[in-house]
Amino acid sequence: MSDQDQNLATVVNTTQGSYRVIVGRDVVDDLGVELRSTGLKGRAFLVADEVMFPNPIRRAQEALERGGYETHVLAIEIGEANKNLDTVQIVYDWLADLRAERTDIIVGMGGGVTGDLVGFVAATWLRGVAVVHVPTSLAAMVDSSIGGKTGVNLPKGKNLIGAFHQPKLVLQDVGHLGSLPARELSAGWAEAIKHGLILDSQLLDTFELLASQMTALEGEEPVAAIRRSVAIKGEIVSADEFETGDRRVLLNYGHTIGHAIEKVSGYGTYLHGEAVAIGMMAAAGIAEKLGMIDSELVDRQRNVLKSYDLPVRASGLDVDEIISATKSDKKTRGGAIRWVLLNGAGSATTRRDVPDDIVREAVLSILD
Amino acid sequence: MSDQDQNLATVVNTTQGSYRVIVGRDVVDDLGVELRSTGLKGRAFLVADEVMFPNPIRRAQEALERGGYETHVLAIEIGEANKNLDTVQIVYDWLADLRAERTDIIVGMGGGVTGDLVGFVAATWLRGVAVVHVPTSLAAMVDSSIGGKTGVNLPKGKNLIGAFHQPKLVLQDVGHLGSLPARELSAGWAEAIKHGLILDSQLLDTFELLASQMTALEGEEPVAAIRRSVAIKGEIVSADEFETGDRRVLLNYGHTIGHAIEKVSGYGTYLHGEAVAIGMMAAAGIAEKLGMIDSELVDRQRNVLKSYDLPVRASGLDVDEIISATKSDKKTRGGAIRWVLLNGAGSATTRRDVPDDIVREAVLSILD
Repeated sequence: MSDQDQNLATVVNTTQGSYRVIVGRDVVDDLGVELRSTGLKGRAFLVADEVMFPNPIRRAQEALERGGYETHVLAIEIGEANKNLDTVQIVYDWLADLRAERTDIIVGMGGGVTGDLVGFVAATWLRGVAVVHVPTSLAAMVDSSIGGKTGVNLPKGKNLIGAFHQPKLVLQDVGHLGSLPARELSAGWAEAIKHGLILDSQLLDTFELLASQMTALEGEEPVAAIRRSVAIKGEIVSADEFETGDRRVLLNYGHTIGHAIEKVSGYGTYLHGEAVAIGMMAAAGIAEKLGMIDSELVDRQRNVLKSYDLPVRASGLDVDEIISATKSDKKTRGGAIRWVLLNGAGSATTRRDVPDDIVREAVLSILD
Repeated sequence: MSDQDQNLATVVNTTQGSYRVIVGRDVVDDLGVELRSTGLKGRAFLVADEVMFPNPIRRAQEALERGGYETHVLAIEIGEANKNLDTVQIVYDWLADLRAERTDIIVGMGGGVTGDLVGFVAATWLRGVAVVHVPTSLAAMVDSSIGGKTGVNLPKGKNLIGAFHQPKLVLQDVGHLGSLPARELSAGWAEAIKHGLILDSQLLDTFELLASQMTALEGEEPVAAIRRSVAIKGEIVSADEFETGDRRVLLNYGHTIGHAIEKVSGYGTYLHGEAVAIGMMAAAGIAEKLGMIDSELVDRQRNVLKSYDLPVRASGLDVDEIISATKSDKKTRGGAIRWVLLNGAGSATTRRDVPDDIVREAVLSILD
């Protein structure tokens, strides 16, 4: 058993109830016990990304069984390319075959795509059943597993379909990151660094100073940084659950251009975090041209991203296609794009009044 | 303009906000003005069952435009047979093409299937946008348009997929019922009579005494009865929004066997209300065999249903298939079916301890 007090990163408060986010090493062994302590009964339906097969999945299943849960397991390939309604239907069919009921629990284990998709299934199965997230990628840990956003893609846009459906528990085992490809790990750090850039200059400092320990996942510093990043996300979600205020939207820093890059290049060409890194560089370019930040902060952002092996430029893409794609992004409202822009290190704001030519110039500046 | 005070049937209070249900003749002309008074801005995306094309749809669109809304219209064939994810995708594609945004409003106009499907689209488009229901069938008016339940079918079961998504306004024009086929009108009365049977013996009396005025839709009595039925539904939803208590489940009277009959006979063979009428007879049989009600009330229920031209028996179906189908119904919990049973006229309760042989006997008694 892990030290629960130490591992508790945050408690997220939402209209659908409060839930704990636990971050530590080997905490997956506590999955059943922690789930039991939420008071949830019923069977556990573990939907896991096939890439975790067999050992981590079996370990999670055994932990659930130790908690007293009858457990069913579905291991399927889940990725950006099949984050769609066809894959959702595969899970629906499995649940229908096993007659999953309203009191049963769906556990999603895998990266961010798994959480988005499994969360959507849970939001819509029998009009909503309990979901628990066991994110195994860094991006999912520091970002997507917290806050109840679920989503799947349509051919015409990313995450056009979804629901807000808060989990009952989020359990993050840092040990899972050991088997992650280096590129995916970097993509995850992009989201964590983003938290520093927009809200916590001290966290940004830590990412700059300890880049080598972080990327090697050595010692307690990476665990502490993940926990801190998780806590930032949890605070924002608690304050602005449905992104109706001015707070949660800040987490979309880098995402307007990032989403457009993912779309124009074809989903899967860039990892989401990589596209966000490039998108943050475009957004920094906009902020600089608007006089909100100086070139030194732009350089600082570029350097910290590069020290985590993240791309800061994109090649082979057309500026007009990218700009057109931003306009179908779901963060638009009343036609005007709401840009998230830095106005200092660890500080961000939103602007709707960014002139088209400045956007174009900034996008051009990150294209090869 | 209609008399708003007189036409207001109920205000439903939910965790997603409160909303009015307006019932009257010609109230569709107030659609835009009533929508404006909710404070909603954005564009209106009217999704209507093609069967309403062209005049009622045009009238609703003109009413929306008089309220100041830019309005887009999609008229498609919507029925039980295509209440599925393929039809949902047609609406998603239309919304994607028009870049419908989070602040826009989806208006569903049609029968219960339309409301279920359009409500599901609204619940899942961009993680949830505002929805307004303009139910045009009697079943949708007195039942499905109120309460936020949305759903679509899977091949393996009815309404397995869905979400709770409360509307911002429900507007019911009794004039729409004039063009309804007699069989559909009867099916709607089944749900209204159900409200009387389970909760309001006075309403049950009215349905018995005024059957001919009701079915002819003559005078104010039918409008008043619909309004009363709507009010009952609204009170129940306000008290037990998510069907987690003991209240809302009462509305499922007749539905366990009703759903099974729909499934075994093939969706579309029986209208939902027809299947519920037969299901209520099976449930009455169970209650009688359990000694909860006497044969007089069973006869009374049969007679009132028959006086609205509703079926009280089913032919050509297999008892074992029906019983098996009840076990995949989503109202099961922990394996035991929660039966809604009358214990008097205008009074119902739930029981989980119904012996299999009594269910079998009751189902056999409604089969030819």
